[in-house]
Amino acid sequence: MPELRYDPLQHRWVIISTERAARPSDLHASTKYNSVKACPFCEGFESSTPPEIWSIREPNTSPNSPGWKVRIVPNKFPALKIEAGGKKFGIGLYDMIEGVGAHEVIIETPKHDLSLPDLPPEQVKWVLLAYRERLRDLYKDTRFKYVLIFKNHGMSAGASLAHPHSQLIATPIVPRNINIKLQTAKSHYEKKERCLICDLIQQEISTNTRVVSIENGFVAFAPYASRFPFELFVAPVEHNYSFVEVSDDELERFAHFLKNILYRLKQVLNDPPYNFVLNTSPNIEAKPKFSDQWVTIKYDYHWHIEVIPRLVRIAGFEWGSGFYINPSIPEEAAKYLRDMKSE
Amino acid sequence: MPELRYDPLQHRWVIISTERAARPSDLHASTKYNSVKACPFCEGFESSTPPEIWSIREPNTSPNSPGWKVRIVPNKFPALKIEAGGKKFGIGLYDMIEGVGAHEVIIETPKHDLSLPDLPPEQVKWVLLAYRERLRDLYKDTRFKYVLIFKNHGMSAGASLAHPHSQLIATPIVPRNINIKLQTAKSHYEKKERCLICDLIQQEISTNTRVVSIENGFVAFAPYASRFPFELFVAPVEHNYSFVEVSDDELERFAHFLKNILYRLKQVLNDPPYNFVLNTSPNIEAKPKFSDQWVTIKYDYHWHIEVIPRLVRIAGFEWGSGFYINPSIPEEAAKYLRDMKSE
Repeated sequence: MPELRYDPLQHRWVIISTERAARPSDLHASTKYNSVKACPFCEGFESSTPPEIWSIREPNTSPNSPGWKVRIVPNKFPALKIEAGGKKFGIGLYDMIEGVGAHEVIIETPKHDLSLPDLPPEQVKWVLLAYRERLRDLYKDTRFKYVLIFKNHGMSAGASLAHPHSQLIATPIVPRNINIKLQTAKSHYEKKERCLICDLIQQEISTNTRVVSIENGFVAFAPYASRFPFELFVAPVEHNYSFVEVSDDELERFAHFLKNILYRLKQVLNDPPYNFVLNTSPNIEAKPKFSDQWVTIKYDYHWHIEVIPRLVRIAGFEWGSGFYINPSIPEEAAKYLRDMKSE
Repeated sequence: MPELRYDPLQHRWVIISTERAARPSDLHASTKYNSVKACPFCEGFESSTPPEIWSIREPNTSPNSPGWKVRIVPNKFPALKIEAGGKKFGIGLYDMIEGVGAHEVIIETPKHDLSLPDLPPEQVKWVLLAYRERLRDLYKDTRFKYVLIFKNHGMSAGASLAHPHSQLIATPIVPRNINIKLQTAKSHYEKKERCLICDLIQQEISTNTRVVSIENGFVAFAPYASRFPFELFVAPVEHNYSFVEVSDDELERFAHFLKNILYRLKQVLNDPPYNFVLNTSPNIEAKPKFSDQWVTIKYDYHWHIEVIPRLVRIAGFEWGSGFYINPSIPEEAAKYLRDMKSE
């Protein structure tokens, strides 16, 4: 069983993946996509994946057969599994939770070669709908405190298969960077009774030097202290703490918006490898009973997506310190993207 | 002038490097060492670098000429410079400090092809001596709150030149990961009047499943919650808050120890790319006057080195969440390294 282990110096949880444990000879930073005879994510190869969990399909087609638009399957090599686990242990100064969670793959399209900016807006909407529905479903399970939805596009961004897909990992803990944001947002709210991310968005809109696009109720800007060249912060302008609460109409508007942003990145940076990560509310049903965490979360948190193009190598300085050197000026990055004619 | 910008959501400082600002076409994760006709770090090519700051040399040789053992020069493309800067600004919700600092390269040997584990212990001692002397010197400048010393070995670990070297960056702020450790260590000390890292070391020694080596007053172990395969934590067994305080005798013993640890990594993992980062005390002379930070730092902090082999790709999950999946079991990694016969 995998273990969730806590680093008491860094306040950081790590999944130690015991089942796929690697010998020294297995470890080498791969420079190629996994070689597969036929892509398991393509239409017609449904039997190459574990049975599907959720899909959008044409009427009268059966699960695990062709006819789908978006298809969600368990990761074949899951970092965490849904069965058993969850027991908590203290081991001297350390903490451990027996691995429990979910690790799923969201196959974004039956087409092997079309990535999000190339897809019709309706298809992008289905992907976003899939995110929301999986969040809603997994948050019914109070063993899971967080569901992290993320996308690795391109091999150097960590994708091991080229076919467009995102992933989700449900965990019994809240990941560190999310936790830091939650605490910061809460303490801002306690002082000001305002959402920090609403405040940041308003400052960006009024400064108007880092905004890439503001349209249909959404905004994308290059963060003031961007860690990486062409990093973007994408969020609804109006306050909303959770992606679970996004309406169908908003999903449709957001699909257009996100597609447009990713299209700009693709054009300006020549289809760069990138990651994006959905930062949404943790599962408030899983809140510890006698804690004051998350009590104002509906007011103090604001869902957003971080988009991180992977254009520079990360060296020891960054790993060891959590401190970054960005060779690109956010205001200039925003201008390149803003000036790009959209499709 | 470069800017230090603060991310109010993540409590993270970022250097925005305005002078070497990159256009989109300049940005691509390089897969080759910088091509240089002759290595600027080799003996005989001293004029290819900026003038040296510090060196250990044979008697009667002049600066910037052959005859050196270890040589320190300014980075040719510094992230921060020592002149001017340092003014602090608030910009709405953001904070900015005009870039000031130092960025130096420690050339570890005149020989192009010998890395730390291949060098004679005396040469490794000179490198460590260089670290200590630069720390002592730079900490006289109270504009600098921290000096981060780190090494990138191998191209995929971020080295842009093959010749063995380390780097240091002096900054007017304390980097985030160091700050988190300082706060954790302080709060442990407040409760228990004991150093957290001393406690961790004692637990590791008595558990004895993750220790790679304990010798000459130093210990190396695979951290319980290692983020990366074969990650190592290297520290003196006896309490010492700062590398500045390491005696000549300790430097000599540590040189043997570090060389041996890096030799084990090299043998077991076939000369892997790696980073190491020295985590030492911040510059207590630069402590803000009316703050209680660092007041017990001589008792609560404990210098150490984090060694991170770069064997796996880092994907969106890790970037977005600060949460890691380690495909290798720390106890097993420690056993591989422990069982390796040393030279």
